[in-house]
Amino acid sequence: MAGSLYALILAGGSGSRLWPLSRELHPKQLMKIEGDYTLFQAAFIRLVNCVDDKNILSITNVKLETQVRTQLKELQEKFCRNSSYRVVTEPESKNTAPAIALGIKFVEKMQDAALGNCPKDDPIIISVPSDSLIGDEEKFSEAINEAVKLAKENYIVALGVKPERADAGLGYIKTKRNKKIKDISMDALKVEYFIEKPDKESAQEFVDSKKYYWNSGIYVFKASVMMAELKKYEPEIVDILKKSEISSQTPTIAYTDFEKMPDISIDYAVMEATKKLAMVPLDCEWKDVGSWDAIYEISEKDENGNYLMGNVVDLGSKNSMIYSTSKLITSIGLEDTVVVETEDALLVCDRENSNDVKKIVSHLKERGDEVQLTHKTVYRPWGYYTVLTEGNGFLTKCIYVNPGAKLSVQLHHHRSEHWVVVEGKAMVLKGEELFELQNGESVDIEVEEKHSLQNPFDEPLKILEVQQGDILDENDIVRFEDMYGRV
Amino acid sequence: MAGSLYALILAGGSGSRLWPLSRELHPKQLMKIEGDYTLFQAAFIRLVNCVDDKNILSITNVKLETQVRTQLKELQEKFCRNSSYRVVTEPESKNTAPAIALGIKFVEKMQDAALGNCPKDDPIIISVPSDSLIGDEEKFSEAINEAVKLAKENYIVALGVKPERADAGLGYIKTKRNKKIKDISMDALKVEYFIEKPDKESAQEFVDSKKYYWNSGIYVFKASVMMAELKKYEPEIVDILKKSEISSQTPTIAYTDFEKMPDISIDYAVMEATKKLAMVPLDCEWKDVGSWDAIYEISEKDENGNYLMGNVVDLGSKNSMIYSTSKLITSIGLEDTVVVETEDALLVCDRENSNDVKKIVSHLKERGDEVQLTHKTVYRPWGYYTVLTEGNGFLTKCIYVNPGAKLSVQLHHHRSEHWVVVEGKAMVLKGEELFELQNGESVDIEVEEKHSLQNPFDEPLKILEVQQGDILDENDIVRFEDMYGRV
Repeated sequence: MAGSLYALILAGGSGSRLWPLSRELHPKQLMKIEGDYTLFQAAFIRLVNCVDDKNILSITNVKLETQVRTQLKELQEKFCRNSSYRVVTEPESKNTAPAIALGIKFVEKMQDAALGNCPKDDPIIISVPSDSLIGDEEKFSEAINEAVKLAKENYIVALGVKPERADAGLGYIKTKRNKKIKDISMDALKVEYFIEKPDKESAQEFVDSKKYYWNSGIYVFKASVMMAELKKYEPEIVDILKKSEISSQTPTIAYTDFEKMPDISIDYAVMEATKKLAMVPLDCEWKDVGSWDAIYEISEKDENGNYLMGNVVDLGSKNSMIYSTSKLITSIGLEDTVVVETEDALLVCDRENSNDVKKIVSHLKERGDEVQLTHKTVYRPWGYYTVLTEGNGFLTKCIYVNPGAKLSVQLHHHRSEHWVVVEGKAMVLKGEELFELQNGESVDIEVEEKHSLQNPFDEPLKILEVQQGDILDENDIVRFEDMYGRV
Repeated sequence: MAGSLYALILAGGSGSRLWPLSRELHPKQLMKIEGDYTLFQAAFIRLVNCVDDKNILSITNVKLETQVRTQLKELQEKFCRNSSYRVVTEPESKNTAPAIALGIKFVEKMQDAALGNCPKDDPIIISVPSDSLIGDEEKFSEAINEAVKLAKENYIVALGVKPERADAGLGYIKTKRNKKIKDISMDALKVEYFIEKPDKESAQEFVDSKKYYWNSGIYVFKASVMMAELKKYEPEIVDILKKSEISSQTPTIAYTDFEKMPDISIDYAVMEATKKLAMVPLDCEWKDVGSWDAIYEISEKDENGNYLMGNVVDLGSKNSMIYSTSKLITSIGLEDTVVVETEDALLVCDRENSNDVKKIVSHLKERGDEVQLTHKTVYRPWGYYTVLTEGNGFLTKCIYVNPGAKLSVQLHHHRSEHWVVVEGKAMVLKGEELFELQNGESVDIEVEEKHSLQNPFDEPLKILEVQQGDILDENDIVRFEDMYGRV
């Protein structure tokens, strides 16, 4: 029996090919690339037309959980829902095959919790990436509805997009007509095979032949069918999952042995091998936001083929993308070049090589460089902070506290802190004393002194903090109380 | 009668081709490019071997005067001289011909002041740029001594350098043997003609022919000879100068009509036209620090032909120069590219086009962009400050005060200031109260409150300043006392 519809949004990726704009701790899917919503939020909103919103699960990793929950909370308010949207948290990112398996298991647990010993149906699951732009929500819903029909008949269905150019960074689907499939859904096609990231020449041939589609990464399948295919082609994933304990109420990060999961995508694990694949065309604008070259391709360019963004002064460059988020970029005579600037890092890259950006990120990771992890701006449950300057024995931050938020009650062994309110007002706990600090006022927090910074007011609070001490380290923190459970 | 020896250091240039490292208000000649001294200081030290140091005049413009004086003061202490070195200040930069004419006039005035109505000799003048690196000080002195011999015989003498490569950014001197000149100085040659900045092919021919030298821009001449040639070929300069009033004691900026001076180099004004030119070879390493390509050429490169400086992670680039002063630069697959990053601006440029950098600077100037003027770091007589962050109604600075220095006694109509000492200690005047502020302590200065920040101690002082107010402008300052005469 096939029945209730669920959706999984895969939101645990690190987006390393969009360095330095995207970071492991603030990846592209959590950023606004186009419009008012982040890519992740847009993926959620798109699904609400097809699936009951309480059946949409967001799968991410523990490091991104807070940000994902914050973005979901914004949507929940928009849709006026009372119950929180579900987040499934992986202890670490393990690519899409383990993420999807975990999502399916979680759906089953939700059903167990809701229905107890009553008979359960076999849920249909829509799995979507969280990093693409889709131009037409109705076309998306139509394609999903067609795919669901096929999934009910035990097909694993991919949504395919007509290719517009020979992009070597995408996956290609070779299709053929098939009567059985056509009987279920008019436009659907049988999939002959998958090719992930071909070389440039092959990509051009595929586009010219008109028999290939881009793989959108959107899949629809019956839970039991996918689990059977996983068991067949990647049994390790199913075995590890079987042993794990998962609570359906409070997703914890205590999944047994999750770190042993193979690091493999669903495309390589199942899609390349399975015989059950069908494809439904997604007949609207679809943009992959995978690499800088892809972003260049989808951008509106000037008469010299340049996409210039932010504070840029250019002289004679061609077919280049120059993107500034903070400082002035001056450029002369560049060709086919990508320049991306953020507050703390810079990428200058030949456009052709833009898929190699992830190699740079791996390299930074190997050498233990924190810059690949975070921006100078670091997101916290209560807001964010930006490191302004680090000197010998001191460090300054600009701290932004959301209305209603509170930093934990804490102390530091090695540093004193000095706060000046520059926007809004603060409630400060200093030792045992609790008092308001107005815009323009300041307070000193001594080494070993218990303190907390709070914003119980309606306006955002911004303070400048000067830290001083022999050790200035985020780990020098003893927490006593924390509204975000971090004690 | 030819006699006393003087030197002019031309230190008023803006170094716009080295944007963004060099700025109008902090140009390359005032920067340390190699070794312990700035290029300007190195030019001075080099001359001390040939000329009495009190006869060395530094010619700069009013905007750079403070920095030039500060750098001279450091040298004066090194050479244990009591009298200050002379600075001639142009009201605005007008290229090298007016600067040299002004220098000559100033030398004459110095003689008048020293000798009154006694007979004066016709001074020999060495004019040097302040932006080249010279490898051998003895060879330099030898060449100058030879040039002085020729200058005494009414030649205008250029020092020439054997060209090492076809650099289109330099001037070339075509020479021939001449018996009369050889009789005065063994190695000296007659100059047939000058070619400023030829095209790349011509430059290559010049280098191959071995009859051409690079023009070092170092000239030696008799004051009367140069003035006569200027009168002949660029009479306007001499006319305007004749009308100006110049005091030999306190160089003021009140030279009449200086803004009417033609903006022309001595090369175009005199050297291309005069028949009196001779050349003495400067037989040692000489490096022009004119453009980024020139800096690339003189740098030590790795096996891929790259010059990587600062925090750079590169993947497969070739023959490129990547120079970071603050943030991480990641680069992939660049060829013949220059990337230069400073705290507030960035240049990405095809190496071949690096002479076009000045066009970018002109463009920024046209659109009134202050970034071409200064770095985020601004130099003051008492030290410097760096703007860390600007927000809505607030601004933070890191202020560095030299030992023994004092900021003026002042007040602001529109902002309060909040200071935290992060290095050294301060003497603070707040209202009528004068007190010490230790490392880690802080003080609030109210709107309209008279105050002064001073460092009478031996160690440098660093404070973090938070400014708050509706108007945050460097012009909102009322000065009462100032040790640098800025009241």
